[in-house]
Amino acid sequence: MNDTRHAVLAELESGSVSGPTLADRLDVSRAAVWKHIEALRDAGFEIDSGDDGYELVGVPEFGGPAIEFGLDAPFDVEYHDSIPSTNDRARELAGAGRKDVVVVADEQTGGRGRLERAWASPSGGIWLSLVLRPNVPTTRAPIFTLAAAVATTRAAREAGVDASIKWPNDVLVETDDGDRKLAGILTEMEGEADRISWLVVGVGINANVDAATLPADVDATSIREQVGDLDRRVFTQRLLEEFDALRSDVDSVLAAWREYAATLGREVRVETASGEVVGNAVDVRDPGTLVVETDDGEVAVTAGDCEHLRSA
Amino acid sequence: MNDTRHAVLAELESGSVSGPTLADRLDVSRAAVWKHIEALRDAGFEIDSGDDGYELVGVPEFGGPAIEFGLDAPFDVEYHDSIPSTNDRARELAGAGRKDVVVVADEQTGGRGRLERAWASPSGGIWLSLVLRPNVPTTRAPIFTLAAAVATTRAAREAGVDASIKWPNDVLVETDDGDRKLAGILTEMEGEADRISWLVVGVGINANVDAATLPADVDATSIREQVGDLDRRVFTQRLLEEFDALRSDVDSVLAAWREYAATLGREVRVETASGEVVGNAVDVRDPGTLVVETDDGEVAVTAGDCEHLRSA
Repeated sequence: MNDTRHAVLAELESGSVSGPTLADRLDVSRAAVWKHIEALRDAGFEIDSGDDGYELVGVPEFGGPAIEFGLDAPFDVEYHDSIPSTNDRARELAGAGRKDVVVVADEQTGGRGRLERAWASPSGGIWLSLVLRPNVPTTRAPIFTLAAAVATTRAAREAGVDASIKWPNDVLVETDDGDRKLAGILTEMEGEADRISWLVVGVGINANVDAATLPADVDATSIREQVGDLDRRVFTQRLLEEFDALRSDVDSVLAAWREYAATLGREVRVETASGEVVGNAVDVRDPGTLVVETDDGEVAVTAGDCEHLRSA
Repeated sequence: MNDTRHAVLAELESGSVSGPTLADRLDVSRAAVWKHIEALRDAGFEIDSGDDGYELVGVPEFGGPAIEFGLDAPFDVEYHDSIPSTNDRARELAGAGRKDVVVVADEQTGGRGRLERAWASPSGGIWLSLVLRPNVPTTRAPIFTLAAAVATTRAAREAGVDASIKWPNDVLVETDDGDRKLAGILTEMEGEADRISWLVVGVGINANVDAATLPADVDATSIREQVGDLDRRVFTQRLLEEFDALRSDVDSVLAAWREYAATLGREVRVETASGEVVGNAVDVRDPGTLVVETDDGEVAVTAGDCEHLRSA
């Protein structure tokens, strides 16, 4: 969204305002004001023209300008109705040197999860990928995955969903029938040992979608199934704002993660590149290592597929 | 080098052999044998033609076919007399899906060190970059940097140079006047948290070069300065073979690293992204973390510039 359009929205946010006043305040022509008002209407903003001037009466529930409207975090939003993969697009932007951009889509046609697994991404979800350039060593990268899980969980809880985190990066809802996956995270990066060049954190949230349409093998749920449809704009903004706060204070991430963790205190089976680890998940350590108490002592697991076993 | 040329060299390695016998054994025409012999001569191999047939009497001290000749490690060698940066070329190959290739050059015109510092790479050095695709989580990447430092140190010691390792990735010679840098390592990678997509490990060795021509601010030395010029082919082969053995047994890397470490037991100052750490370097922990005993307790450093302070 261009800066004048941003400014027009900011003025409308404060209440009704006449065309001439807007033109005056923003130092543009009345024709320019009219043009921006029309563009905002095209983007889904409902703007009445009455005796008091323009009045904002409705904000679209999703889309680029909608997410940027009132967003309290320094991310540029690039929105797509449909895209093969927000992570792939974010990697392109990262390769071109961009930072603090979030690629958002209503639908992905080639969504990817960890380890090149397919990730169902029907219209109505929130599929987003952050382009980041944190000045930290590459080994610290997992902390941003944890931060994204915390931010997603907080946004879900504010929406009334009783979400929690499965190590390392699934947001789920625990039910009597087992865990149901609400969101997943795929972090990709390039860098040297000393420094991340770029980091792409992709978050896929089953938002306003029918859980029944998601692949059966995933044991998925959706926000629609849990609490009904919501304004994806608000959810996305809260996620971005929470993430921005966490990345500014990475030392707070682990404590926040532990607070929402469904994994700690559970019997788990973790499949790692070097074998299977079974035991009690007792802690998570910087930068995201799971500590499992096994029959052979404590094992520190840095990456793998984690399964929550039935508690005794 | 193509497979037939490899086979010709392998036959010559075992002793003199006639053209017809070679053609027979390799199931190619005599003209093809002659063509390969000529190509090998062009590449610097000295091959006599006598009554007993072809006899290998000299192997070039550097170059692609020379390094592949008798190499006991599964790396394809791509050699360049001069190239901007072996790491950049290795990244290209990695992006194209290659693995287990080593890009080697006699000279780099745009050599890079850590954090985009320039790395002087005159003709006569050994500038090489390995393209690897290890099936390990990204957080384990530093272990390959340590492995490269160990392999380089072993090759240098076999060449008679009293080399040791400064954390995390410099190979140096300790002198009464302080440390002199013999080699440096730059590791770059791309991947997701669970898995490295590709890893490029660049090693630059000041081999047959005048130390005096290297930048003064680096406090460099060279193999020439220490023990005189050597066959870079042999050094490179030993480095590759040692590295290959270490990567096949990554659990052995830390112990080997500690054995050659100049840093452990020393007072160090480490500049990290989050500040300076000063104290006694007491250990290195998986996957390459330096443990420094400071006045405020033990600090674990995952990346940074390390300076050895004058010992008391």
